[in-house]
Amino acid sequence: MNGAESLVKTLLANGVDTCFANPGTSEMHFVAALDSHPDMRCVLCLFEGGASGAAEGYFRMKQDVAATMFHLAPGFGNAYANLHNARKGGSGIVNIMGDHATRHMKYDSPLRGDTIGISQSVSHWTRSSGDARSVARDGAEAIRAARSRGGQIATLILPADTAWEEGAAPIEALPPSPRRLPGPEEISHAATLLREPGSVLLIDQEAAFGPGLEQAAAIAAATGARLMSPLFLPRLARGAGYAQVQQLPYPVDMCLEALAGTNNIVLMGAKRPVNFFAYPGKPSTPEPVGCQVFDLCAPDMDVLGTLDALSKATGAAGASFPVNALNLPELPTGPLTLEGVGQALAHLLPENAIVGNESVTAGTSLLPPLVNARPHDLLITTGGAIGDGLPLVTGAAIACPDRQVVSLTGDGSAMYTIQSLWTMARERLNIVVVVIANRGYKILRGEMAALGVEDYGRNAQAMFDIENPDLDWCALAKGHGVPSARATTNEEAVVALREGLATDGPFLVEVVV
Amino acid sequence: MNGAESLVKTLLANGVDTCFANPGTSEMHFVAALDSHPDMRCVLCLFEGGASGAAEGYFRMKQDVAATMFHLAPGFGNAYANLHNARKGGSGIVNIMGDHATRHMKYDSPLRGDTIGISQSVSHWTRSSGDARSVARDGAEAIRAARSRGGQIATLILPADTAWEEGAAPIEALPPSPRRLPGPEEISHAATLLREPGSVLLIDQEAAFGPGLEQAAAIAAATGARLMSPLFLPRLARGAGYAQVQQLPYPVDMCLEALAGTNNIVLMGAKRPVNFFAYPGKPSTPEPVGCQVFDLCAPDMDVLGTLDALSKATGAAGASFPVNALNLPELPTGPLTLEGVGQALAHLLPENAIVGNESVTAGTSLLPPLVNARPHDLLITTGGAIGDGLPLVTGAAIACPDRQVVSLTGDGSAMYTIQSLWTMARERLNIVVVVIANRGYKILRGEMAALGVEDYGRNAQAMFDIENPDLDWCALAKGHGVPSARATTNEEAVVALREGLATDGPFLVEVVV
Repeated sequence: MNGAESLVKTLLANGVDTCFANPGTSEMHFVAALDSHPDMRCVLCLFEGGASGAAEGYFRMKQDVAATMFHLAPGFGNAYANLHNARKGGSGIVNIMGDHATRHMKYDSPLRGDTIGISQSVSHWTRSSGDARSVARDGAEAIRAARSRGGQIATLILPADTAWEEGAAPIEALPPSPRRLPGPEEISHAATLLREPGSVLLIDQEAAFGPGLEQAAAIAAATGARLMSPLFLPRLARGAGYAQVQQLPYPVDMCLEALAGTNNIVLMGAKRPVNFFAYPGKPSTPEPVGCQVFDLCAPDMDVLGTLDALSKATGAAGASFPVNALNLPELPTGPLTLEGVGQALAHLLPENAIVGNESVTAGTSLLPPLVNARPHDLLITTGGAIGDGLPLVTGAAIACPDRQVVSLTGDGSAMYTIQSLWTMARERLNIVVVVIANRGYKILRGEMAALGVEDYGRNAQAMFDIENPDLDWCALAKGHGVPSARATTNEEAVVALREGLATDGPFLVEVVV
Repeated sequence: MNGAESLVKTLLANGVDTCFANPGTSEMHFVAALDSHPDMRCVLCLFEGGASGAAEGYFRMKQDVAATMFHLAPGFGNAYANLHNARKGGSGIVNIMGDHATRHMKYDSPLRGDTIGISQSVSHWTRSSGDARSVARDGAEAIRAARSRGGQIATLILPADTAWEEGAAPIEALPPSPRRLPGPEEISHAATLLREPGSVLLIDQEAAFGPGLEQAAAIAAATGARLMSPLFLPRLARGAGYAQVQQLPYPVDMCLEALAGTNNIVLMGAKRPVNFFAYPGKPSTPEPVGCQVFDLCAPDMDVLGTLDALSKATGAAGASFPVNALNLPELPTGPLTLEGVGQALAHLLPENAIVGNESVTAGTSLLPPLVNARPHDLLITTGGAIGDGLPLVTGAAIACPDRQVVSLTGDGSAMYTIQSLWTMARERLNIVVVVIANRGYKILRGEMAALGVEDYGRNAQAMFDIENPDLDWCALAKGHGVPSARATTNEEAVVALREGLATDGPFLVEVVV
C-alpha cells in the first residue's frame, strides 16, 4: 500500500471516520486512497473555511476529532479563520494538507508556498512527512496530538511522493497524553475561595454541558458561588432543566458591571477573563481591582476530574441547584422585531436541538427567550472570526444526525462562508438557517459609536453597510439548492420557522429587519 | 493627528488612493481616518479574498499598488490565497492589518493570533508598528517595499493603540530600490544564445504587454529565437495586432513537447520554467536534457531596461515581427459547445477589453479563438490558487473604468470568492462574468486520470462533482444583485454575451455544459 493508503487506514483504525474535504490537484493519491475506503465519510465543502468550521462543529458535539483535507498553502489559508476559531475553543482537528513532491520543492512552481509556516501560525502540532514509510506513524501522532489537552489543531503535511510511494502498515495511535489535574492543595484552596462572599465559578469546556455542568452547578450551589461562563464558549447546555449560568456580556462596561463586587474567580475549564478588545482609558480585564483570579483548571486540563475532586472537597454531591424553567413565550404578532423572532424560535424549538449563534449584534435580542425554551445545546463562535456560523452547524449536524439544528447568523457573517449552504443541501442536513438581514456590519457601527463617532462620511458608510444592492437571501439559498422563505412580519417569521423545522434537509429563513 | 490618520495621509501623499477593505472591529480608528479623507476610494469586499485579489488585479493593470485593510490574523487568513497568487505574479500590495493594542497582546483574547507569523508566510515585507509616532514612517516603508523589485507583498500591522495615539506627520516614501540590470557580458551572452538555433526568449512581466512586448518580439525576430511565455502570467497583450507569443501548455507531456529541440532558453522577466506538479516518473522541469536556461532577467529585475540593452545588442530596433491577425469567427449555432462559446466571445469582444481567465480546464477550448479577436489584455491566475477569477477582474475594472472586462471562470473556482459579485454590483463595474457550469472540479478528474484511475467510487465522486444539488448560477447572481442569463445552446450564448456586453454594470452568463 502507498503512503496515502497507510494514512487512510491509520485514520480509520483510530476511529477517525469523517473527512471534511476540499482537495486540490496535489492530493489525488489521498483522494484515491479515500475512495477505496467507503467507510470513511467524505463531505465536500466548496470553500475550505466550510471544511475547517465543520470539523470544529463536529468536535464540539462528538468530543472527538474529524479529519480535513486541504490543498497546499493557499487552501490551508482559506481554512485558517475557522482553524483559529477551533483553536480558541479547544476543538481538536486532524488537518491533512497536501504538498509538492519533496524533489519538486526546490523549484518556485506556482503553488509552492510556506506550508509549514502558515500551519505553525495556527496549529498546535505541525509535521511534514519526510518519506512514505513515515506517513502512518506521522498520522497516528497527528491523531494523538489532536486528541491531547482536550483538543488541539494538528496538521500533517503530505508531500505528494510520500503519498504515492510505498508506505508502512497502519499504526495504532498512542492514547492522548493524560490531562493534568490540580493538586489537592489547589483543590482545597479553590473550595475555600468559593465559600467566601463574592465568589464566581467560571466554567467552560466540559464544565458547561453534560454531567460536568451538573457537577459545576452543584458546587456553586453548595459553596454559594455564582455560576458564570464566558460569552464565547464552544458549547453550553441551555434551556429548560439545565443549570442557570450567567454569561459574561460583550461590552466592556457591562462586563465590568457583571463582575462588580467579585472577590474571587475560580477558573474551571475557562481561560482568565479578558475583554474582547482594548479601548483607550479602559482596562484589558473585566474583574475588579484586587479580585483574585485562581487558575484551578485551564481549558486543556482534566476538567471532569477536577470537578470530581472539587465536588468532594466541597461536599457538593447531591446539592440542588437552580435550573432554567420551561416558559414558552406566546407566538409573536405584528411588525417584525428581533425580540419577536427570538420568541417565535423559543416557542417552536424542539427538544434537544442544537442552536448555533453567530448573529453578533442581533443575538442580544434573539437569545434571551431561549433560556426558557426546551433544552438544547448552544454553540458560539469562539475566536471572534465571523464566518463560522454556517460551517459550525454543518459539522454539528453531521455529528448528530438525529437532532434538529438551527443557525442564527447575521448577513455580514454568513457571507464569509456562504458556500456551506450547498454542503447542507448535498448532505441533506436538518438545519434551519435564520439570516438576520440588517444590511450591514452592525457591530462596526457599535464600535465606531464607542469611539464617539456618530456621523459617518462616504467611506465609513461604504464599509459598514451591505446595501446598494441588497443581498437577496432567498435567491442565494436557491442558488445553493436550499429552499427558503422571507419574513417581514412576526407572523411571517412564525410561518417560515415552522416550515423550516418541518422540512427534511436545510431551509433558510431571511429575516428582514 | 492620530497614528491612523498619519497613515492615511501617508498613503495619499504617496499616490496610494484606493483601498480594498474588509474591516473588523479592531480597525475602527483606521476606518475613521479613511472616512475623513474622501479622496481615498474605499471598496468594500464581503470576503477578504475578494479584497486581496482585487488589489492584485488593480496592480496588474495600473502597475502600481493599492492598499487593503484586513482584520487581525483570521481576516488576513481569508486574504491569504490571493496574496499567494499576487506574490507569484509579482503584484505589489500594501496590506494594512489591524491588531490588538500592544498592552492587550499578552492576554489570550478571542481574536489574539499570530499576526506576524501568518503575514511572514506570504509577505515579502512585514512590520508591526511599535508606537503611533512610527506609523507614518512604517507606512512609507511599506509603500516603498510594495513598489520595489517590480511589486511585492508588504504588510503593515497596526496595533490599535498605534492607531489611536498621537502620530507623526505624513512621510514621503523613498523611491523603490532600483531594479537590477544584467551586466554587459550577460547581455552579450544572451544575444549570442538567442542567435543560436533552437533558442527561446521566455517572456513575462513587463515583457508580455505594452512596449516591452514589442521590444521582446523584435528581439526574437531579429535573432530568430522563438517568443514564448509561461502559461500562468499576470498579463499578456493578446489579440489582433499584438505580437504572436506561444504559451507553454499545462500538461507535462505537452510542455516537454513544446520545448523539444530547444537548446537555449533566455529568461526575460520570467522564472525558470517548472512543471506545475511533479508526477511519478516524470521530470520536474520541462526543458530538454542539456538545454541551457540562462537567467538574464529575473521577474524582480529591470525588465524594460534589460529589453533596451538587449535590443541594442541584437540590433533589433525596428525589426518587424509576426503579429496576430484579426480573424473573427462566425457566430456559432447549434448545441452548446465550449468551442462555440469561445467563438461567440471572440466575435463579440470589443477592442481593448480585459479578459480574466480562471476557467481552468475549459480555457483550453475558450481561449484559442481569442488570439485573433480584437486586441485585449489577458489576466490569468498566477499562483494556482483558484478563487482569484472574480476578485482579479474586480480590481482590474476599478483600475480601468473605461474598458470592458470579461471574466471566464469555472463553477468550482468561482465558488471560492463568489462574494465578489456583490462588489461588482455595488461599484457598478462593467464586467461580464462567464461561468462554465460543468458541475464539478474537472481538473481533478484529469489529475486522477493522470494517475491511471478511471473508475471512481463514492468518495472520489463526492469530491469531484458539484452536483446533487446543482448550483443555480442565475439565482446566485440575483442574490448578489447582478443580472444574468443562462445559455444552453450556442445561440443562447451569443444572446447572453450580447446582453452582458450591452449592460452597464456587471452581468453573469451561466454556460451549462
